[in-house]
Amino acid sequence: MTFRASVLTLYPEMFPGSLGVSLAGRALESGTWALDAVQIRDFAMDRHRTVDDTPAGGGAGMVMRADVLARAIDGASPPGDPRPRLLMSPRGLPLNQARVRALAAGPGAVIVCGRFEGVDQRVIDSRGLEEVSVGDYILSGGEPAALVLLDAVVRLLPGVMGNETSGDEESFENGLLEHPHYTRPAVFEELPIPDVLTSGNHGKIAAWRREQAEKLTAERRPDLTPGPFRPS
Amino acid sequence: MTFRASVLTLYPEMFPGSLGVSLAGRALESGTWALDAVQIRDFAMDRHRTVDDTPAGGGAGMVMRADVLARAIDGASPPGDPRPRLLMSPRGLPLNQARVRALAAGPGAVIVCGRFEGVDQRVIDSRGLEEVSVGDYILSGGEPAALVLLDAVVRLLPGVMGNETSGDEESFENGLLEHPHYTRPAVFEELPIPDVLTSGNHGKIAAWRREQAEKLTAERRPDLTPGPFRPS
Repeated sequence: MTFRASVLTLYPEMFPGSLGVSLAGRALESGTWALDAVQIRDFAMDRHRTVDDTPAGGGAGMVMRADVLARAIDGASPPGDPRPRLLMSPRGLPLNQARVRALAAGPGAVIVCGRFEGVDQRVIDSRGLEEVSVGDYILSGGEPAALVLLDAVVRLLPGVMGNETSGDEESFENGLLEHPHYTRPAVFEELPIPDVLTSGNHGKIAAWRREQAEKLTAERRPDLTPGPFRPS
Repeated sequence: MTFRASVLTLYPEMFPGSLGVSLAGRALESGTWALDAVQIRDFAMDRHRTVDDTPAGGGAGMVMRADVLARAIDGASPPGDPRPRLLMSPRGLPLNQARVRALAAGPGAVIVCGRFEGVDQRVIDSRGLEEVSVGDYILSGGEPAALVLLDAVVRLLPGVMGNETSGDEESFENGLLEHPHYTRPAVFEELPIPDVLTSGNHGKIAAWRREQAEKLTAERRPDLTPGPFRPS
């Protein structure tokens, strides 16, 4: 089953962008997923192709019109379309790996990229847009966020990763940041690989990695550290 | 002063990507910022241009070699380069708007994009790489994260935003998610713009927006709600 992504944007030329290269690009070519970039401006109703207007109540910036965006959404996602409708927005719930996994297990996503100051609340309400934030910072628009979200989802689609990465034992998949990695050469600028990793003792290696992951998580992300592993 | 970004990657063709369009693209053309995408593979030392190897201690995936990456970093960022060196990684401290502002106020950034299972810890240590995470999810590599980080930074560079967005009153800039927006038409599918916004009473409008922002933040992001505004 093909994962179908429809991205609604004022900059369709930003897509597939980084998603047309490497893992995601090969999966796009092979039909594991499909990407449709829709120009919101094509759904404007005046000859100036206006998509935004000044905010009701005053203030800086421009707001994307509900009527124009609703027409674009209805065009890309007709009644009965089972795909979730996402609005990339710093006001949304933060994206996490569990939401990524759920999206990857579904039929696809309709992704609305906001620009300007924001999007008229009435189209968010009437079209059931789920606001999703990729992080606590402000972007010029939803497009870079959509690229990130789709990259995270596509790598989990069946057959995409192959042997390139494991998909397990990665940061967040077990609630811990990942342990440090080492590879050849054995000595780099007088720094050796830690002895334990070259000991051949698999039990010790696993214990060391777990310990390192717990230490790093406690240092950098105490918000993630699960109870039983919290250092005393 | 030009903000100079050097991105070290196995996929230089992913850049400028979305950063070559719209606000960031115009700023790139006008010289407000500069972008240099460096192919890490060009710094490999064998004729197969190897950049990775199997993890010491075993396990899935491949690890980026310290020696190759160190040569690439030293080439892109010679001694005396004042720019911070970032490694896009889910193990890093989460990017936030304060870090974005600090980066935008500086001379630029050297941004290393990992691929595979990870990067040899010794190059992180010896080259002083600051690990930065754009969110709690796993990407196919650091490239989409670099696009997001640079988008967030570039929009804050002097002259980039113009009148397109305000830069103030936005989510995170005041510790609150942003209030809902409305614009014309006055009625959309029988949904009117809230009366207060068309009242012309600026005090009431400001109070309503503040109240809506506090409510939304409390509902979606209780972790952000500042003390005095926490609803009882």
